[in-house]
Amino acid sequence: MNVDRVGELEFKVADLSLAEAGRHQIRLAEHEMPGLMELRREFAQEQPLAGARIAGSIHMTVQTAVLIETLTALGAEVRWASCNIFSTQDEAAAAVVVGKGTPEQPQGVPVFAWKGESLDEYWWCLEQIFAWGEVDGVAVNANMILDDGGDATMAVIKGAEYEKAGVVPDPSTGESDEHSAFLGMLGRVLDKDNGLWTRAAEEIRGVTEETTTGVHRLYHFAEQGVLPFPAMNVNDAVTKSKFDNRYGTRHSLLDGINRATDMLIGGKNVLVCGYGDVGKGCAEALAGQGARVKVTEIDPINGLQALMDGFPVVTVEEAIAEADIVITATGNLGIISFEHMQNMKDHAILGNIGHFDNEIDMASLLHRDDVTRVTIKPQVDEFTFPNAEGETTSIIVLSEGRLLNLGNATGHPSFVMSNSFADQTIAQIELFTKPDQYSNEVYRLPKKLDEKVARIHLEALGGTLTALSKEQAAYIGVDVEGPFKPEHYRY
Amino acid sequence: MNVDRVGELEFKVADLSLAEAGRHQIRLAEHEMPGLMELRREFAQEQPLAGARIAGSIHMTVQTAVLIETLTALGAEVRWASCNIFSTQDEAAAAVVVGKGTPEQPQGVPVFAWKGESLDEYWWCLEQIFAWGEVDGVAVNANMILDDGGDATMAVIKGAEYEKAGVVPDPSTGESDEHSAFLGMLGRVLDKDNGLWTRAAEEIRGVTEETTTGVHRLYHFAEQGVLPFPAMNVNDAVTKSKFDNRYGTRHSLLDGINRATDMLIGGKNVLVCGYGDVGKGCAEALAGQGARVKVTEIDPINGLQALMDGFPVVTVEEAIAEADIVITATGNLGIISFEHMQNMKDHAILGNIGHFDNEIDMASLLHRDDVTRVTIKPQVDEFTFPNAEGETTSIIVLSEGRLLNLGNATGHPSFVMSNSFADQTIAQIELFTKPDQYSNEVYRLPKKLDEKVARIHLEALGGTLTALSKEQAAYIGVDVEGPFKPEHYRY
Amino acid sequence: MNVDRVGELEFKVADLSLAEAGRHQIRLAEHEMPGLMELRREFAQEQPLAGARIAGSIHMTVQTAVLIETLTALGAEVRWASCNIFSTQDEAAAAVVVGKGTPEQPQGVPVFAWKGESLDEYWWCLEQIFAWGEVDGVAVNANMILDDGGDATMAVIKGAEYEKAGVVPDPSTGESDEHSAFLGMLGRVLDKDNGLWTRAAEEIRGVTEETTTGVHRLYHFAEQGVLPFPAMNVNDAVTKSKFDNRYGTRHSLLDGINRATDMLIGGKNVLVCGYGDVGKGCAEALAGQGARVKVTEIDPINGLQALMDGFPVVTVEEAIAEADIVITATGNLGIISFEHMQNMKDHAILGNIGHFDNEIDMASLLHRDDVTRVTIKPQVDEFTFPNAEGETTSIIVLSEGRLLNLGNATGHPSFVMSNSFADQTIAQIELFTKPDQYSNEVYRLPKKLDEKVARIHLEALGGTLTALSKEQAAYIGVDVEGPFKPEHYRY
Amino acid sequence: MNVDRVGELEFKVADLSLAEAGRHQIRLAEHEMPGLMELRREFAQEQPLAGARIAGSIHMTVQTAVLIETLTALGAEVRWASCNIFSTQDEAAAAVVVGKGTPEQPQGVPVFAWKGESLDEYWWCLEQIFAWGEVDGVAVNANMILDDGGDATMAVIKGAEYEKAGVVPDPSTGESDEHSAFLGMLGRVLDKDNGLWTRAAEEIRGVTEETTTGVHRLYHFAEQGVLPFPAMNVNDAVTKSKFDNRYGTRHSLLDGINRATDMLIGGKNVLVCGYGDVGKGCAEALAGQGARVKVTEIDPINGLQALMDGFPVVTVEEAIAEADIVITATGNLGIISFEHMQNMKDHAILGNIGHFDNEIDMASLLHRDDVTRVTIKPQVDEFTFPNAEGETTSIIVLSEGRLLNLGNATGHPSFVMSNSFADQTIAQIELFTKPDQYSNEVYRLPKKLDEKVARIHLEALGGTLTALSKEQAAYIGVDVEGPFKPEHYRY
Repeated sequence: MNVDRVGELEFKVADLSLAEAGRHQIRLAEHEMPGLMELRREFAQEQPLAGARIAGSIHMTVQTAVLIETLTALGAEVRWASCNIFSTQDEAAAAVVVGKGTPEQPQGVPVFAWKGESLDEYWWCLEQIFAWGEVDGVAVNANMILDDGGDATMAVIKGAEYEKAGVVPDPSTGESDEHSAFLGMLGRVLDKDNGLWTRAAEEIRGVTEETTTGVHRLYHFAEQGVLPFPAMNVNDAVTKSKFDNRYGTRHSLLDGINRATDMLIGGKNVLVCGYGDVGKGCAEALAGQGARVKVTEIDPINGLQALMDGFPVVTVEEAIAEADIVITATGNLGIISFEHMQNMKDHAILGNIGHFDNEIDMASLLHRDDVTRVTIKPQVDEFTFPNAEGETTSIIVLSEGRLLNLGNATGHPSFVMSNSFADQTIAQIELFTKPDQYSNEVYRLPKKLDEKVARIHLEALGGTLTALSKEQAAYIGVDVEGPFKPEHYRY
Repeated sequence: MNVDRVGELEFKVADLSLAEAGRHQIRLAEHEMPGLMELRREFAQEQPLAGARIAGSIHMTVQTAVLIETLTALGAEVRWASCNIFSTQDEAAAAVVVGKGTPEQPQGVPVFAWKGESLDEYWWCLEQIFAWGEVDGVAVNANMILDDGGDATMAVIKGAEYEKAGVVPDPSTGESDEHSAFLGMLGRVLDKDNGLWTRAAEEIRGVTEETTTGVHRLYHFAEQGVLPFPAMNVNDAVTKSKFDNRYGTRHSLLDGINRATDMLIGGKNVLVCGYGDVGKGCAEALAGQGARVKVTEIDPINGLQALMDGFPVVTVEEAIAEADIVITATGNLGIISFEHMQNMKDHAILGNIGHFDNEIDMASLLHRDDVTRVTIKPQVDEFTFPNAEGETTSIIVLSEGRLLNLGNATGHPSFVMSNSFADQTIAQIELFTKPDQYSNEVYRLPKKLDEKVARIHLEALGGTLTALSKEQAAYIGVDVEGPFKPEHYRY
Repeated sequence: MNVDRVGELEFKVADLSLAEAGRHQIRLAEHEMPGLMELRREFAQEQPLAGARIAGSIHMTVQTAVLIETLTALGAEVRWASCNIFSTQDEAAAAVVVGKGTPEQPQGVPVFAWKGESLDEYWWCLEQIFAWGEVDGVAVNANMILDDGGDATMAVIKGAEYEKAGVVPDPSTGESDEHSAFLGMLGRVLDKDNGLWTRAAEEIRGVTEETTTGVHRLYHFAEQGVLPFPAMNVNDAVTKSKFDNRYGTRHSLLDGINRATDMLIGGKNVLVCGYGDVGKGCAEALAGQGARVKVTEIDPINGLQALMDGFPVVTVEEAIAEADIVITATGNLGIISFEHMQNMKDHAILGNIGHFDNEIDMASLLHRDDVTRVTIKPQVDEFTFPNAEGETTSIIVLSEGRLLNLGNATGHPSFVMSNSFADQTIAQIELFTKPDQYSNEVYRLPKKLDEKVARIHLEALGGTLTALSKEQAAYIGVDVEGPFKPEHYRY
Repeated sequence: MNVDRVGELEFKVADLSLAEAGRHQIRLAEHEMPGLMELRREFAQEQPLAGARIAGSIHMTVQTAVLIETLTALGAEVRWASCNIFSTQDEAAAAVVVGKGTPEQPQGVPVFAWKGESLDEYWWCLEQIFAWGEVDGVAVNANMILDDGGDATMAVIKGAEYEKAGVVPDPSTGESDEHSAFLGMLGRVLDKDNGLWTRAAEEIRGVTEETTTGVHRLYHFAEQGVLPFPAMNVNDAVTKSKFDNRYGTRHSLLDGINRATDMLIGGKNVLVCGYGDVGKGCAEALAGQGARVKVTEIDPINGLQALMDGFPVVTVEEAIAEADIVITATGNLGIISFEHMQNMKDHAILGNIGHFDNEIDMASLLHRDDVTRVTIKPQVDEFTFPNAEGETTSIIVLSEGRLLNLGNATGHPSFVMSNSFADQTIAQIELFTKPDQYSNEVYRLPKKLDEKVARIHLEALGGTLTALSKEQAAYIGVDVEGPFKPEHYRY
């Protein structure tokens, strides 16, 4: 695997000739991403990210293209990989590489991503976003990470750990195919440059992370005392968790299911595993289409919310046999086992929208001898196997258990991502420009910045806010300009 | 333009090598079309359509493939065209042609359809479904029509009219590009065989028609006394109009918009023109995604329904300037004029789901000098023009104003179509097997057959009906077995 | 039982001192009944009901008061009874009697109704609306009936039948307590005046009827050839069946349950029996409150609609044991048996909103020895009995099985009733002023009048209709002014 | 004003003869309050509140009766007042006083509350809950406060402050009628016993408070350093703020409007001021009835949520002229001014569900010379005044601007209150039994207790939770038994 190179520009994408198509879509998306466009306007002069070298790892979609070009518009240098093997939109990747150039003379940003990477290719791409090479003979490293799911951060932390140990565990000892591929990449890097990750860890001023899973890893690292730089938990910004997770999912779940299958959702039994923000978005979308939705939960508070919203709370065991569609949205592992699948209806649909493919026992589907796989179309597979009664049955699995909204459709729509990515951009500015104000812990976005992002998007939708009078502000004890709520307020 | 021919099998599709992919989808769709599969089982022995030669004109989708193969399973011969230039799914068309054969030795059904036909190609395809050739030197003609929108029926009636007159009007006199292409086809046929349509009109035992528009044409022909054969109004079966039109639209509107654009629907202003069954489906789908929906109506009853359902009733003039998305669903013409478009928001979306592209003034967009067109991707065009203030603005038009759910997505999902197509199949059997019971008028499907179709699908969804006791049946004056409602009941 | 009389004004209500309170409510209701107020304006000069003597039998509520005063404003004389023993609002009845007078010198309309009539009192009241006495020594009779449920019409038809036979069956032979009371009244009348009903049947120009049940009786009489005058089926006006039945129920079901109990509806299991217009209104209201709703149906089309709307379709037997609330809305009898009740949850709620109390086996509750009744508050009774396992259980029954929205609350809100009552008024005018155009059959309201009623209410809600252009009207084959739909259109 | 006294039992309620009716309702409510009943079972032996003397101030409803009797079942002594002049259900108050006795020999709990207190009576009642008298010649004081809105707490803090100063400001200096009445009460007490509040402040171990407003006051006192005892913020328990505020409001808003008026909600324009938990509940309820809802907000995050949920965000000025119903739900003051009212539609409805009547400028309505008031029925007033154009107009105001769900209906239903009151009870136990663990600050309920309350209610609704496996718990870093979420999680 080698990078492509035109002049100084390195990249690896599917097909640069898709750039024009990608540029059209990016242009349209800019209209739907008022948060990023407003930040471009606000910081056009100031260039707060001048000097930043950002290693970015987010699904390489059209929306991410607008994010990347916002970061560079604010002065940053960027190298980019996708955080999911299926989620790249090849025309967007091409357009970002081409930039203002042409497919023959690309002048854009180094992107390493294409739809349908293998696991080894995935980690190779991630390796590239830290390969900043040398300037005037001096090794240059990333000094910021912009992360989704935490793979980039994990690479730095584990890479540095293994550099210190002088050895990377043998890939054959990996806990999963994914982990083995990760170890393989680290081993290969170690052979080439046994100080890369340690240097990166030292130079990086901070990471901004936008997923539940990635944030969970960050808090874990911080608790263990191994977080080598400050981290901004963008996921828990209200304009992220309550918008991207919920309203983005409400939109893109249907998009993913619809593009993958011809199944009517109305009238069907759907089992949604998990009633967090993502599960809430799923349930609302499905109910809005006339499905009969049931929910599983481990948390009694979320469970009671599901009941109050009109959804029965059941276990997978109770409900799986009658479900036409099963969606996992838990952020946890081992939700749908092979045994569960053996109790599913013939031709039922199974998909995950909860970050990792380990919510579903894909390993059994992919490796058992009694399972046959037919690919109906890309990212839509029919798996046939003996059911609980020993009869042959089949289920339709979306995106091999990875995020179906990204694998089967194009992920969250631009407007939702404009919220999350405006949070990301603001968080990058905050950590990069104020290195002294943050220590190696996990921070949440200041509420006032959260409100700022909301305000931009509210106005873009034509909403009119009411201004507090001084008397009213005093009455509830806040500033007229906000922030308007205590930290513990739940929205 | 020539037909392809392998042995006796004539056809014209995009690419026979897509057949395997199409067959996979057809196989999955069969699971979602219990109405058709139940009819295959019920009539496997009886072969009620043996001897029928059906000229079929419905969007050539995966679902239509299951319909076609149901008709042939019941004994019919079939020739097929699509009723819309954009709605063919090429892999479905290929699979139907290939049938149980191979792409090299297709053994299926003559299909003449591909995605993206020109208007001339469209009418050429329609011509082919009446070109049954000769058997033993004797001209053979279609003896049934299965129609969607009424183009096939109109061809027979107008063709026969012009044959009688001995001349077809010059295409340059057509009222529209579409009409000119239609006249061009009829003229070409007249030159080859000046009795084709007259013979067909005589042999045809009946037409079954499933759209509001097509039915409207049929009633019009019947009133004028020029309907040459009986017609079954399938559109107004409850299991069609209240299911396909409403619930199918609820599903496929979102699918069409989502595949075409990256626009978040939640939070947006959407204007839906028309609050019939299709408009109701649109509004419900959009509201289920959190859009702010406004409705236009000409009928005070439908308008009052919209208000009671929570949707403001406005005129296009009042609402178009603030709409992010505009959807026409009226079944009438001239709904969105070029002047309206000049008052739309920059980058707003405009699409039609109400049968014909004349709901929108596509002619202006396509022919005015001050309009520029950029195709973002197939069936998604950006039209740029001066707005009402003379500034440059652009709007995104879906499927050139034709049915966006078919042009930008795959039409209604299988389960919904299973209702409509079971109605169609039952209606074909009724007219073909009982030629003496119907005169040259327009009939509605007997309510008991309508209830039968509903029952099959209700049971497929796991519903359990309650049986009337004799006492209860007597109390409300119906038979225990149904039909359960008076004809005027509205559901 | 004697009528009260002040001057020539006869009446029997609970308490005339409530008149001021009633007048306040009537005044507010007039603002919510634009249909009736518009008719008052339109016909103020013409006085089309001058000469009409209307025997009216509709729930004596505030809204009915506005109807009554509209009828008199158009020239009619009116005598009024309620059509339900629990549904009278005593302050409304008082205000109508008092009219522009005072409680001491009432100058209004003869009303015979109070909340909580016995069955005998009920039929006595109904008797009074036909007791027009004499003018100048000549017996005067009603010449119009305005009916709800058909009791007034049935009294005339059966009364005349028994007069012809010369004898009324003994009350002890009645099929139910209700029927016995009815026979008792007829017998009493026969003794006084053995020609009353026959004379009335001859003079009456028509009946207008607004319920499913009453209409069903009318079609039955017409089929038997015993309908002695024309009947207008107001129930099946779209502005009635699709508004009163559906949207009225959506509102008043919750009102009835809430006033009766302190039970949270959100999160609860609710079983709705029947998915006609009334059942649809119930299900929508309950779902809007976050209940988990299941539906029973006998009609596969309605059942499939329920599934498409997201509601499981089950039998009573399958679902009753887990229901917290059970609502009957079928218009049929014998829906919830005592055995069903024995399988209900302890303290579950049971109510009917489907016209008659025979939807529920009230007879067992009221007459079995093993059932104990405690009245929690008026119209809310706790019945305690041994459950299916022999343990003591209790259920809460609303309004003794009669219409809970009327018994426990105040019925449909004014705005909804304005539609139905405008239909009634228009139908009264139609039948009274055009006696030659109608024979002794059941007619539906002309669609154009239906559209007129809708238009008034749409405009009152601030909606703006779009006018058809001539070209558009021609395109769909209707008049620019409407009617806009074929008779079979279902809305 | 004197207390009533039977034996040692002091009280003041409307009518003890209502006790039986109240007891029936309490008995039914117990079935709907599984949280409280479960706590009675769990702590029956332990009697954790033995020795507690609770001064309780919560709306004296049927649900509060179950709370009071739960507190006494756990060992506490209780004296009770309502926290709102209109919210008492007189039959509930009577039943609590009567207890297991009879109206002649009541044996229950001292309650001082009736529906329709004057402001002076209100504060007199509140005075009584601190009047514990003497035992064996020694003054006894409350040692716990259970508060709603903070009036009881404020009385202690301000009372002690004035005792220290030796004088209470003259009532004529009060900022409002309410404040004047408060000062009047404190002055009267000071004259009788100039150490009462100081002693109480010393003895009280803590206050538990359940409203946004009351909690806000507590944080304010804590910041000023004048909070004399620990406080538990029950309002921000998830099972309170996300259930009582949201789902309780969803239920009781409709109940309040419906009992007050005959106005159809479907199809109407409704303006909801505030989109916090209460506003969200309002909007959901109204949308579920088919209203067109608009929302005002000061917080861009809440505002953006409203837009994403499909509700336009506007200012009062933009929307008030077209609103049929206006509901304030902000928790702030001065939302609807008299000038706003002058722009309202004739006969529009105005109500508050956001805690205090100062959300609406009631002072102008009650005191201006050009305003006329007609009481339609209790808690429903028509105010007539010149509108913005100088024409006479009127609006209907519910509950004089106080909480309409309590004033016009019976407040939140039992099941919702079971959550809040279980939180209250648990919080009382926590503060009373662990005085050493809490200092004079404001605490939130431990998440594990919050989850416990949710679990009880989830199970009561028939929900089944999924248990985390050890592996899953480890994967997300929580204990198998919970708590399951970080403190900042928003649900």
